[in-house]
Amino acid sequence: MNLKASVISSVEDLAFAERLADAARPIALEYFRAGIAAEAKPGEGFDPVTVADRGIEARIRALITQNHPLDGVLGEEEAHTASQNGRTWVIDPIDGTRAFIAGLPTWMVMIALSDAQGPRLSVLDQPFTGERYTGLANEAAWLERGSDKRRIRVRQGVRVIEDAILSTTDPGLFFGREADAFNQIAARAKVRRFGLDAYGYAALAVGGIDLVIESGLKSWDVAALAPVVTGAGGIITDWQGGPCHEGGQVIAASSQALHAAALECLSEAVA
Amino acid sequence: MNLKASVISSVEDLAFAERLADAARPIALEYFRAGIAAEAKPGEGFDPVTVADRGIEARIRALITQNHPLDGVLGEEEAHTASQNGRTWVIDPIDGTRAFIAGLPTWMVMIALSDAQGPRLSVLDQPFTGERYTGLANEAAWLERGSDKRRIRVRQGVRVIEDAILSTTDPGLFFGREADAFNQIAARAKVRRFGLDAYGYAALAVGGIDLVIESGLKSWDVAALAPVVTGAGGIITDWQGGPCHEGGQVIAASSQALHAAALECLSEAVA
Repeated sequence: MNLKASVISSVEDLAFAERLADAARPIALEYFRAGIAAEAKPGEGFDPVTVADRGIEARIRALITQNHPLDGVLGEEEAHTASQNGRTWVIDPIDGTRAFIAGLPTWMVMIALSDAQGPRLSVLDQPFTGERYTGLANEAAWLERGSDKRRIRVRQGVRVIEDAILSTTDPGLFFGREADAFNQIAARAKVRRFGLDAYGYAALAVGGIDLVIESGLKSWDVAALAPVVTGAGGIITDWQGGPCHEGGQVIAASSQALHAAALECLSEAVA
Repeated sequence: MNLKASVISSVEDLAFAERLADAARPIALEYFRAGIAAEAKPGEGFDPVTVADRGIEARIRALITQNHPLDGVLGEEEAHTASQNGRTWVIDPIDGTRAFIAGLPTWMVMIALSDAQGPRLSVLDQPFTGERYTGLANEAAWLERGSDKRRIRVRQGVRVIEDAILSTTDPGLFFGREADAFNQIAARAKVRRFGLDAYGYAALAVGGIDLVIESGLKSWDVAALAPVVTGAGGIITDWQGGPCHEGGQVIAASSQALHAAALECLSEAVA
């Protein structure tokens, strides 16, 4: 137990983030494809929250309280635990709940550690495929799978929208000017992929997808993305080119040129 | 080598289909996430065909020629080899090439064995996740993954569109009355998933997705679907309720009631 640490240590804290992801895996896999009925949150339309979602967040919170009692925790399922030392864990226990209930292997457990500057390190874990993406913001990112762990890099050389593989979770989530801007980019992109949530950003970090454009994200949807994306050499910002870790409109790209080209279209639809 | 067999044997032929899928796996995995550029087929717009696609079909054809020289082969990449005994292998070496080039784990190697009645047995293989779906039409279907092999069943109890998780590869592939019918169903469905190709039917067979609706499919896109879907207790037909293994408009459902409800909407948009 470390009562004093308020500084983030790349090595120790990333190892602890992986311990949290390790604890989440068996809970997630117990309920994946197990026919669990999703509950709807009253008044919010259809928003499936599985038993796994709550079980994972509770388990992760317990481990943080035990080992880092002064750290804050911001998660999707429970009330915010304020930080007493400037460090905050940001958790989305099951990102991609629709993929989860549909039996698709593209949901993720998202765990980030933030300080005043934003998310510094994170884990994006896919327990079914065994893919674990880890990142140190602006430094490095890795994909570990079984006994294989390697540095990952975004795809090189995609500079224009016409060459880009584009991902967004749901084109129906954009409205008004946002929808116009997105549709303009989507029509120009080489390939479009939908329904991926955080897995789209992981695919960007591993060199598959070039551009992810989303809106209406929450802070727990976003915090764990930046360390993996920027660690792999990608760019992630809001639609004005500023920090995006509090959620809202997000764009991630595999190159500066592609990011700039997309921002040009999106800038007229800034919230 | 068996020169005389013209009858399909469930046990031996399914084992041979699995040998074909085994041969495809290392070729597919060599190129997945390896940054291979997709080639466009001239005059057909963007239709990525990877080196893996061609390598797998060539390898599978060689194995069939060696072991079952009288069998026909219908594949996406090469000319049709006519059957001399009534048996035809139908192959889509990489179904879901867009997912493949985007680094997503939802492409599949599709292998079916057909006779005059249509596809009798098939393998849907996902080499990256290690999921191997096998089916004997109207009899049984299995999911094998590592050392775990189990019978699979479609989800029970979804009888109306409003409770259904719906999949289609691309809602932009429907036109005119087809688009109207599809959009009507999509608006009523509980959840929509896009971009899955054959993986959506596998997800139906394993109880995740309830309803798949597509159009414009080729015979090699479709042949391997029916044995897995019907083996798992699901229904797969064209939009008139007839056989669909030659391609075109396809609907798969987890229950008779859901199939009937969707057909009612689709029947006005039959090609």
